[in-house]
Amino acid sequence: MKFQKILSIGIAENKLEPKYWERLDKLTEQRVMLSQDSPEIKIQISNADCLLINPFVFKVNKELIDVAPSLKFIGVLATGFGVVDHEYAATKDITVCNIPGYATESVAELAIAILLEYTRDIEYAKQLARKGNYSDVPRVPVYEIKAKKLGIIGTGRIGSRVAEISLALGAEVFYWSINKKPELEAKGVIYQEVEKIISECDFVSLHLALNKDTEGFMNETFINKMKSGAILLNLSPNELVDFNALEKRLAKGDLIYIADHTDEMTPEQIKQLSQYKDFIPYPPIGYQTVEATALKQEIFVGNIENFLKGEPTNKVN
Amino acid sequence: MKFQKILSIGIAENKLEPKYWERLDKLTEQRVMLSQDSPEIKIQISNADCLLINPFVFKVNKELIDVAPSLKFIGVLATGFGVVDHEYAATKDITVCNIPGYATESVAELAIAILLEYTRDIEYAKQLARKGNYSDVPRVPVYEIKAKKLGIIGTGRIGSRVAEISLALGAEVFYWSINKKPELEAKGVIYQEVEKIISECDFVSLHLALNKDTEGFMNETFINKMKSGAILLNLSPNELVDFNALEKRLAKGDLIYIADHTDEMTPEQIKQLSQYKDFIPYPPIGYQTVEATALKQEIFVGNIENFLKGEPTNKVN
Repeated sequence: MKFQKILSIGIAENKLEPKYWERLDKLTEQRVMLSQDSPEIKIQISNADCLLINPFVFKVNKELIDVAPSLKFIGVLATGFGVVDHEYAATKDITVCNIPGYATESVAELAIAILLEYTRDIEYAKQLARKGNYSDVPRVPVYEIKAKKLGIIGTGRIGSRVAEISLALGAEVFYWSINKKPELEAKGVIYQEVEKIISECDFVSLHLALNKDTEGFMNETFINKMKSGAILLNLSPNELVDFNALEKRLAKGDLIYIADHTDEMTPEQIKQLSQYKDFIPYPPIGYQTVEATALKQEIFVGNIENFLKGEPTNKVN
Repeated sequence: MKFQKILSIGIAENKLEPKYWERLDKLTEQRVMLSQDSPEIKIQISNADCLLINPFVFKVNKELIDVAPSLKFIGVLATGFGVVDHEYAATKDITVCNIPGYATESVAELAIAILLEYTRDIEYAKQLARKGNYSDVPRVPVYEIKAKKLGIIGTGRIGSRVAEISLALGAEVFYWSINKKPELEAKGVIYQEVEKIISECDFVSLHLALNKDTEGFMNETFINKMKSGAILLNLSPNELVDFNALEKRLAKGDLIYIADHTDEMTPEQIKQLSQYKDFIPYPPIGYQTVEATALKQEIFVGNIENFLKGEPTNKVN
């Protein structure tokens, strides 16, 4: 089975390697690429049976679905699919698929990488060695992960992997999640109330999805409960953390905040936090590995192939 | 039981925290501290029954042992005890104790830290983020440890821990060691001939002690057998690696050398290697954690206490 017409919107040529575009071409009679601003969208979608979108630049609402009577499949080139009215799509028998988990390992490895970078003062050590200085280390007490209390908040794919790797590093690993995870507990990860994790752990790593319940999750009370000298690690959306409370605590000089979604902050926010030595910002590099980039494309195209075979994968509606 | 006289040589006051000096004072009638250059050494040692030395600045040979007829115990403030003629000491019924394994976790964590630092181009990412640049990453392909082949050469305490943590990161972990390690194999680490590890692994981590058999272990043949783009990680003595062969291979631009004992190189060697972007030097920071520093002192003083209780620990002769 083939599609009559695959329409892609907002997906630049270089977002997929040539071999994936070729695989897509085998799945359709016709393939049309439009930018998110194209005036042709409504005309082109009227007879498309497959729509592929870049959700960071294009939304799919009821109105659009209503002018796409042939549509059977919407492929979202990301994990998040909130910009697609997937419930309405379901009422029209349109399958919506996303790309979950493609960066699980990459993000989990980055969490460990930047935690160890901090605990061992790696950047400073590298700089000294390049100057031929082998004496002036350590400049601050550096320490082991082993035997420290490490708390994971949110045990989806990424949080669970960070928990497993931390166990191997010899940390005492705790988790809090809406649903208990017997499979993690069997490995030695201990369930604990979120307040207790926040107030007792040396390292707290946030792995929650962003939604209306989790926005500002790390509120003033929680931030102030963290131990003196503790590290708050955030490779999840920046909006999980209350900015003002964070700034106040950083000003006290006894909490370290390491985060990689700092591109989501305003330039003013970045400037404010950058006053504090304990704010350790990273670019959003969690998913930027060779492996995650390949897996993302593979799952994206695989979803379409599997739908045509009648065995849809990663259907969200 | 107590010693009559503990004599320490070359151990500066600040090498042990006050609480450890206090514990030592409880074990002896008299305690004398001398520098390694003191003219009083032969006089003071003549009636000492316990000798503590800093082996980096002071050696214990037959001649010294012969002028110390009361000596019962020699404590070495390090792991390496090669500077003490421990075999001759044994003939005089003198117990020699060292401090093994105090930095196992610290060194193993550092190995993982600096491997991940490289694979994710962390230093560069940090610098960009501080400049408020969230776009120009990655500058080079960055990649996961997961599913890569990682070879451990030498599976003493540290090599074994690096193997275990690497398994948790999802690497395919191989080892070569003079003695097979069934306990590692039970965990999933695969024994392989050293040539095969060197020629097939993406990452090769050296964990051999330095002796006449291992000096220059990574010779020209081995270095040239390493895969293009492979990483050679060396947190063991610098002398394990043939310098000229390493330089030639670095000049080709297809091998990465990450090492933390670069203080053992001559300034000329450092200068020569520093021409190559794939030489990533670190200061010798493997053992410099709070935990290792405390454990070292604890074991050192514990050895002396245990000897007096008739249950010597870490006896090497």
